[in-house]
Amino acid sequence: MIPKNHPRYHSLIVREGLVRCARERIVTLEGLIAHGRGEAFDYLIGERTSPAALQAERIAAALLITADHPVISVNGNTAALAAGLIAGLQEASGAAVEVNLFHRSDERITRINRLLEEQGVRVLKGEAKRLLPLSHDRALCLPGGIGSADVVLVPLEDGDRCQALRSLGKKVIAIDLNPLSRTAQSADLTIVDEVTRALPLITVFCRELDQDAAKTLSIGYDNRIIRKAALDEIIKRLTHALD
Amino acid sequence: MIPKNHPRYHSLIVREGLVRCARERIVTLEGLIAHGRGEAFDYLIGERTSPAALQAERIAAALLITADHPVISVNGNTAALAAGLIAGLQEASGAAVEVNLFHRSDERITRINRLLEEQGVRVLKGEAKRLLPLSHDRALCLPGGIGSADVVLVPLEDGDRCQALRSLGKKVIAIDLNPLSRTAQSADLTIVDEVTRALPLITVFCRELDQDAAKTLSIGYDNRIIRKAALDEIIKRLTHALD
Repeated sequence: MIPKNHPRYHSLIVREGLVRCARERIVTLEGLIAHGRGEAFDYLIGERTSPAALQAERIAAALLITADHPVISVNGNTAALAAGLIAGLQEASGAAVEVNLFHRSDERITRINRLLEEQGVRVLKGEAKRLLPLSHDRALCLPGGIGSADVVLVPLEDGDRCQALRSLGKKVIAIDLNPLSRTAQSADLTIVDEVTRALPLITVFCRELDQDAAKTLSIGYDNRIIRKAALDEIIKRLTHALD
Repeated sequence: MIPKNHPRYHSLIVREGLVRCARERIVTLEGLIAHGRGEAFDYLIGERTSPAALQAERIAAALLITADHPVISVNGNTAALAAGLIAGLQEASGAAVEVNLFHRSDERITRINRLLEEQGVRVLKGEAKRLLPLSHDRALCLPGGIGSADVVLVPLEDGDRCQALRSLGKKVIAIDLNPLSRTAQSADLTIVDEVTRALPLITVFCRELDQDAAKTLSIGYDNRIIRKAALDEIIKRLTHALD
């Protein structure tokens, strides 16, 4: 049992949940290492949503609600951390949800679908085809899902896949705590925030924005400035860390 | 198979080895997450030994070779990443090596001892006693090892244990990639470097330094300045990251 007054209580509880999901093979061992990288970056941004991230979340909502066919791509870590929050965002945005895995197996797909459905997500299913220009099974996606999406939200993704989606002309919204990662650099919109903080905020903005405001927001932003602001936030914090 | 020309080749190979050790229960699932945190910080320091870290490694060698009873405390991650390098440092420094685990079980102790011995480490054994002021099994250590040590090298440790060792009057040398961690802040000497780069460098300095030079080095340093320099290195890199 983790004592509630432990200075790292929240982080430890999340970690415990992820370890449990690794035992159930929803999260891979590589996924645990990736979570650790995220923890370090979240620590550096102060474990809170920066003004730049909040603005990116507002724009993400605008992109989702003005899209013709928005899709949320979910991997093992995202399902483990945020299945219920995905359900909320699906409800508010009208986006389809598709499971897409780096380490793909029928067993993992089934387990992750079940976890998502238990939390109220309507998961797209069907026969996946090799639609993305990538080696291995990461190329697999559903023709009626990511295959025909115009906007794809990819929380916690690998850089290659983000680039592959963009090469097919899709708009990619990434949630990535490392503002310098290949995903962060190649996405159309980069949200430098922790996924369980980002998803409910995007959900609120989906409900708040009307179509006109959303259209204006979705064309009038500069992702380089948004990423730069996220990085500046880290630098500012580090500069005063030993004061 | 990871292609040799992959930009993250070294990091991926290390990760693969650690995942294998997790399957063999040498590394815990929590240890994988901790490794991810280390990866992120190593990425931020540029995956190379900074001048400040090199100086800390020289001082660490001085502390080890002038100690009466130096001990290297080894956990699962350290054994998985650096068993052979621990053997080299033991040879050069004359330090004893003791296995000390956060998630302790007889099975894990046995497996880790075996891994270390296969790589040429002479591992201290015996009946562990609760000698540290800590809850759980982290308090356990050997009376003839850490229990009577004057200098303890703790690569990849948790902050509580570092503080507990210090409260018993022991000098603690930490190897920690996060210059802001509790371990980094509470150690007598903080080496902000990756463990497989740090250990061979400390080993070389153990061979190079004579006792007089080592005595001078071991009393004439300021750990706050060393940590500050490591942090400044990260800030400098981040400041130019988007140029």
